[in-house]
Amino acid sequence: MTDWGVYLVTQESLSGDRTTRAVVEAAVAGGVDVVQLREKDRSARERYHLGRKLRTLTREAGVAFVVNDRVDLADAVDADGVHLGDDDLPVPVARDQLGPDALIGRSVSFVEDARRAERAGADYLGVGAVYATGSKDDIDDDEYEIGPERVGEIAAAVDIPVVGIGGVTADNAAPIVEAGADGVAVITAVTGADDPEAATRDLAGTVADARGD
Amino acid sequence: MTDWGVYLVTQESLSGDRTTRAVVEAAVAGGVDVVQLREKDRSARERYHLGRKLRTLTREAGVAFVVNDRVDLADAVDADGVHLGDDDLPVPVARDQLGPDALIGRSVSFVEDARRAERAGADYLGVGAVYATGSKDDIDDDEYEIGPERVGEIAAAVDIPVVGIGGVTADNAAPIVEAGADGVAVITAVTGADDPEAATRDLAGTVADARGD
Repeated sequence: MTDWGVYLVTQESLSGDRTTRAVVEAAVAGGVDVVQLREKDRSARERYHLGRKLRTLTREAGVAFVVNDRVDLADAVDADGVHLGDDDLPVPVARDQLGPDALIGRSVSFVEDARRAERAGADYLGVGAVYATGSKDDIDDDEYEIGPERVGEIAAAVDIPVVGIGGVTADNAAPIVEAGADGVAVITAVTGADDPEAATRDLAGTVADARGD
Repeated sequence: MTDWGVYLVTQESLSGDRTTRAVVEAAVAGGVDVVQLREKDRSARERYHLGRKLRTLTREAGVAFVVNDRVDLADAVDADGVHLGDDDLPVPVARDQLGPDALIGRSVSFVEDARRAERAGADYLGVGAVYATGSKDDIDDDEYEIGPERVGEIAAAVDIPVVGIGGVTADNAAPIVEAGADGVAVITAVTGADDPEAATRDLAGTVADARGD
C-alpha cells in the first residue's frame, strides 16, 4: 500500500543550483513517500534519462514513483504510474496502456470532477491549488485557491486517497490533512528549501501529527 | 506495403480557416499516402480526440496514419505508428510499446544519424530540412537547408524508405525524389494551399513522374 503523506513533484528549474537527482536523494533521506517526475521544461528524451535514474533511486528506497502527463514515459522508465490533468490522455486510456496495477492519479479542483475521476478509475487525486502560490510555475493548472475546506469536501466524496497541492509548506499542511486529505504534494517547499532533507522530514512530521499517527 | 509518395503533416494553425479534418479529407481525395497528426500547439487531450477522427478517416481510405512525438497518443488512437525526433523517446522504447508491426519514423539530417536510426529499428526516415522554409513553425527541428543531394546520400546509406521534408512544394519536389527519396513530406504546401486536394494531387503527380512510375 502506498502511503501518500509527502508527495514530491520535481522541477529542477525551481531547485536552485541543485539537480533534481540531489533533491530526490535528500527527500528520500527525509522520508518522502511518493516522487513525481515533472520537469515541464525538459524534453521527453531528457526526462526519460532522468526518470530511469530516479526509478532506480526510488525503487531502492521503497518510494513510489510516478511520471507527470505522459503514459509512454511512465511505461518507458518502469514507473509505478502516471499523473494526469485535464489536458492529458483520459484515465481509461492510461489504464489500458499501463495495466491494472499502475497508480493513476488525476488533478481535480471540484467535487464533481473528483467523483468522475474516481469512476474513470483513478487511484488517487491531486487536489488544488489549496493555497495560492503566486508562482505560475509552481502549479500550472488551477491557479486559484480552493482552501483546505474544499479538499475535505473532495476527500469525503471519494474513496480513493487525496493529496492537497499548491502553496503547501510545513506551516500550512496540517489543516489540509485535518480536513481529510491523506497527504500533501509539494514542489518548492522541498526543492527550494535550504535543506530539502530537513524540509521533507518537517512535512512528514506535520502530516503524521495531523493524521494522529 | 506503405507507399511514401506524399506524406502530409497536419497543423491546423497553418491551415488558414480550414480545420485539420477538412485538410485531411481533401488530401485523401487528392491521393495522399501517409498522414501524420502533429498539431504542436494542441493539448494531448485535443490531439487524442482529433486523432481518433483522423484514424477513422484514414482507415476508411486505406491511408497510413502516424502520430508525431508521442507513443502513448499513437497507441491511444490506434495509429499505424509514431514519428520521433531527437528530443523524443528512443526508437527501441517506441518499438517495445507499439510492437513489431508499428511504423516508427525518425527525423534525421545526417548520414550517420540515419544509419543509427536504421540500426535502432526505424521503419522510415524523415530527412530535412531539404529547403529552408523561412518559417520556424513549418519545420521546427533542423532549420538549415541540407538540399536534395544530402537526401540522396542518406537514401543511399540506408535500406529503409526516406521522405524529404522542409520547404517542399510541387515545384521543387522532383529533385528530392530523383536524388533517391521515396517521397516528400509537406505541411503548408497542402495545408496552406488554395485547394488542398489539387495541391496533393499535384505533389503526387510530381513524385510519380520523378520516380518514373
